[in-house]
Amino acid sequence: MNFPHHVAVFGPGLMGASLCLAVRKLFPKTRISVWARNRDRLDSALSRGLADTATLRPEEAVQNADLVVLCVPVEAMPDLVGEFIERISKKTVITDVGSVKANLNRSLSSIIGKRARWIGSHPMTGSESAGMDAARDDLYQGATTIVTPTAETDRTALDQVTHFWEALGSTVIRMTPEEHDLNVAAISHLPHLLAACLINATPEDAFRVMGPGFRDTTRIASGSPSLWTGILKENRPAVLHSIQRFIDEWGAVRDVLRDGDDDALHALLSRAADSRQRHMTETAKSKTSALKSIFR
Amino acid sequence: MNFPHHVAVFGPGLMGASLCLAVRKLFPKTRISVWARNRDRLDSALSRGLADTATLRPEEAVQNADLVVLCVPVEAMPDLVGEFIERISKKTVITDVGSVKANLNRSLSSIIGKRARWIGSHPMTGSESAGMDAARDDLYQGATTIVTPTAETDRTALDQVTHFWEALGSTVIRMTPEEHDLNVAAISHLPHLLAACLINATPEDAFRVMGPGFRDTTRIASGSPSLWTGILKENRPAVLHSIQRFIDEWGAVRDVLRDGDDDALHALLSRAADSRQRHMTETAKSKTSALKSIFR
Repeated sequence: MNFPHHVAVFGPGLMGASLCLAVRKLFPKTRISVWARNRDRLDSALSRGLADTATLRPEEAVQNADLVVLCVPVEAMPDLVGEFIERISKKTVITDVGSVKANLNRSLSSIIGKRARWIGSHPMTGSESAGMDAARDDLYQGATTIVTPTAETDRTALDQVTHFWEALGSTVIRMTPEEHDLNVAAISHLPHLLAACLINATPEDAFRVMGPGFRDTTRIASGSPSLWTGILKENRPAVLHSIQRFIDEWGAVRDVLRDGDDDALHALLSRAADSRQRHMTETAKSKTSALKSIFR
Repeated sequence: MNFPHHVAVFGPGLMGASLCLAVRKLFPKTRISVWARNRDRLDSALSRGLADTATLRPEEAVQNADLVVLCVPVEAMPDLVGEFIERISKKTVITDVGSVKANLNRSLSSIIGKRARWIGSHPMTGSESAGMDAARDDLYQGATTIVTPTAETDRTALDQVTHFWEALGSTVIRMTPEEHDLNVAAISHLPHLLAACLINATPEDAFRVMGPGFRDTTRIASGSPSLWTGILKENRPAVLHSIQRFIDEWGAVRDVLRDGDDDALHALLSRAADSRQRHMTETAKSKTSALKSIFR
């Protein structure tokens, strides 16, 4: 399987610009075109050497591209695809880096139809810092990237997208768009809300004694409020499901503490510590073996 | 104000052993004696060069010490102090590194009385790894250490303890034992329970797609279940108060999401992101100025 000869990146923010840097570094022969909403961002992208060509015209960015990667907010994707879809080659594969998949898959599938091949992707990486300035050529290295095929997905395109992320150092996991949304609601969207809520519930006076534990626990709450409003809105049913699961568990924690049931409290803390340890070890193992298979 | 000539450290775990290493490094002329519950730990402490002398007898460890630092679990402190208090010099200052203060202060004050001078301390630092093996000579460097005087506290002893932590690179904040317990319930004990509860509420399948955000948010939940059961039990009223504050805030989050009120959701996320940014900046500033005043 070959790495794409020409990648078109839409939106040179943290995710898009990091993608350009990673492709540049690992596959210097691959051509990169970038699309952005305004001239300043195009100029910045070019002056940083992120791309060979940069344009404000979507149909120009996709010309001759093997792979198009949408790195704009999820809610902006359908209109953007609508602007270039009539001009794209049928062989082109379109993917994205968005955080929510079921809705997006429905709307993009209906816009794209048979005009190109589409599969959603979601690299589980990022930073609380946003924008081109925070971009890093190793952002995808060691990350888990979820790819979300459906019954309609073209198998060759699926292999191409899988290979693309693996070649950039990601471990690829496949699941349906619906499974994706439930899983990321639990592992990413719920924690974001908890971190924000924890900060908002903290009395002013207590911040004076903040230690590294609190800083780590709340780090993700520094993410862009606009970006996260969009994500949470898009994945509302799955997030509400996760919130309810958490409320049930949290009620049990409060009861155990209120009743002074120290054995149950110890059991609850042990279950969490053991579970975290086990899953961290498993993830590290699967990443190591994935990296070995790429760089063997 | 002079640094103590002789420090007695009770319990060479993560906190105690790191204290020995820090004193060794920054004040090599200071004598260190260590007490531990068993011979193996004493031997380990000596073979790592943590102390000049090591003993199983509490009264021997405190002999000629200017400062005694209790680094054992909070619930073990009263009995331990009872074992040496009859043999201690009146000039000796006793402090500790325990995570809960109001109860402890009451019980230690009644045991110590006028036989020595006692003030509680709580360095807001640590690690999810426990024990002597995880010790570091810079654990207290840049940390915030809370010192908890009361109306009965000897002012000279308070200055001595304050100077001790500052000399090891900590920023010292003073508050009453009761204020301490409320503040750490909010900034440390509640986040620990939330992290544990988040792990326990996460479906097995979702761990497959865990990213760095989830890892950071839940890091503290890897702490020792026994240690944390003790801490939470000791600070139960303040923790229950924090839990209730969180439940109220969390109910608001769920309502906003369920009602699809995106403006309110954005406002809530912005408030958290801004608040975190502001407090991180303030803490960093106050630490920088504290470090400058020590190392000028």
